[in-house]
Amino acid sequence: MVSRKHLKFIKSLQHKKYRKQAQSFIVEGEKSVVELIHSNIKIKTIIATKRFLEHHFQLLQQEDIEWIETSKEILNKTGTFQTNQTALAVATIPEWPPLDLSVNPFIPVYEYLQDPGNLGTILRICDWFGIDVIILSSDSVDVYSPKVIQASMGSFTRVKVYYKSLDRIFKQAVHTRIGTTLEGENVHGYDWPDSGMILFGNESRGISGNLLSRLDHKISIPKYGGAESLNVAITTGIILDHMKRHQSLRR
Amino acid sequence: MVSRKHLKFIKSLQHKKYRKQAQSFIVEGEKSVVELIHSNIKIKTIIATKRFLEHHFQLLQQEDIEWIETSKEILNKTGTFQTNQTALAVATIPEWPPLDLSVNPFIPVYEYLQDPGNLGTILRICDWFGIDVIILSSDSVDVYSPKVIQASMGSFTRVKVYYKSLDRIFKQAVHTRIGTTLEGENVHGYDWPDSGMILFGNESRGISGNLLSRLDHKISIPKYGGAESLNVAITTGIILDHMKRHQSLRR
Repeated sequence: MVSRKHLKFIKSLQHKKYRKQAQSFIVEGEKSVVELIHSNIKIKTIIATKRFLEHHFQLLQQEDIEWIETSKEILNKTGTFQTNQTALAVATIPEWPPLDLSVNPFIPVYEYLQDPGNLGTILRICDWFGIDVIILSSDSVDVYSPKVIQASMGSFTRVKVYYKSLDRIFKQAVHTRIGTTLEGENVHGYDWPDSGMILFGNESRGISGNLLSRLDHKISIPKYGGAESLNVAITTGIILDHMKRHQSLRR
Repeated sequence: MVSRKHLKFIKSLQHKKYRKQAQSFIVEGEKSVVELIHSNIKIKTIIATKRFLEHHFQLLQQEDIEWIETSKEILNKTGTFQTNQTALAVATIPEWPPLDLSVNPFIPVYEYLQDPGNLGTILRICDWFGIDVIILSSDSVDVYSPKVIQASMGSFTRVKVYYKSLDRIFKQAVHTRIGTTLEGENVHGYDWPDSGMILFGNESRGISGNLLSRLDHKISIPKYGGAESLNVAITTGIILDHMKRHQSLRR
């Protein structure tokens, strides 16, 4: 059984303040918890239904993980999912190695990214395209928010997120600074450099003037119809696909 | 002032059953309501704050729209948005002309699309790429659900959604039947036909065996990393961008 105090602690991790204090975050849902177990991220405890524990018994033993059996009802009340919870893990916020800008030829950079669903989807997209480092401005949404973790579908275990002052990063950059804007050069004809930082602006305001003035290249996805803009995750998917296509053509 | 009976009617439109009965749906938020006014969709009534009505007075007069002033509090309680409502419109579900498969060279088709956020985002993407007709299997999410309307950011006024039996559509098709699958041909090298229906499968199950066997071509987005799949809206964005790139190269 899980103590009330423990449940209260777990619930508190829905808030950034308490996550920071405890250097811990929660991972919910069978798929995400299993991906977490397979990753290098340290797990403090798992609370799960009997069915989950039986189903994954070998894996849990093998990885020497502490677990507590509980009911669906308590899981539903403790987590942020309202229904059908089967497992919830408390994990230690990982300490990634210091940011090395030369680790990936292209690094996606986000200014004031606000929506947790967008960040989760972006992690999943980067993971698909084999990009394991992204940079977010310090004022962006917290990657350890339960909604981000959920939307990332396990990709939070593979993509490292660094919070940085973009001003500073842009000054130091050895990479080409590429920005996605509504008035940039058509990405279909863009001659990609060998490496670069690809900057995506805020969901409603786009890229701020300060960073805009520091861009080496501006690119955009050609528009044929009436929509004013594309969502930042959709833009990420299309731009990274172009970048990958370009890289594979070079080889 | 809005009568309680009227508010109850508006609230009922959050449910598909009542939308069908009244052949009406609700549109919320300043941007979406303004796009609605500019469209050909018939508006029954608008309830809005004083500020909204003053700001858009000319437009409302010009279009001869019936409106009722109300408070933010009542709007927040009546609509599905919890905060910051400024306007809500009740509109008549439009009757689109009969589906004409030859109207667009390429038509996106969705099997059992479930998530309203995904459908809204897909409408926005199609609108961006100038595609104004899409087909959904009859068991897909209702396009007039408030969440779809909200996520489409006004694109519901320009993209026509047809609910059809995909079995029948696939049998009749004069277009090439292209399906997006995880094991298809790399879309980067795909030699696009002049026209086609592009089929996207269900969010978790993909394309069903029945339709899979009827495909002329299977295409996929190359994967380089660990994520199991891409979200259906992201896939739509990347595939439509490729299709447009191909079309513009042909010209």
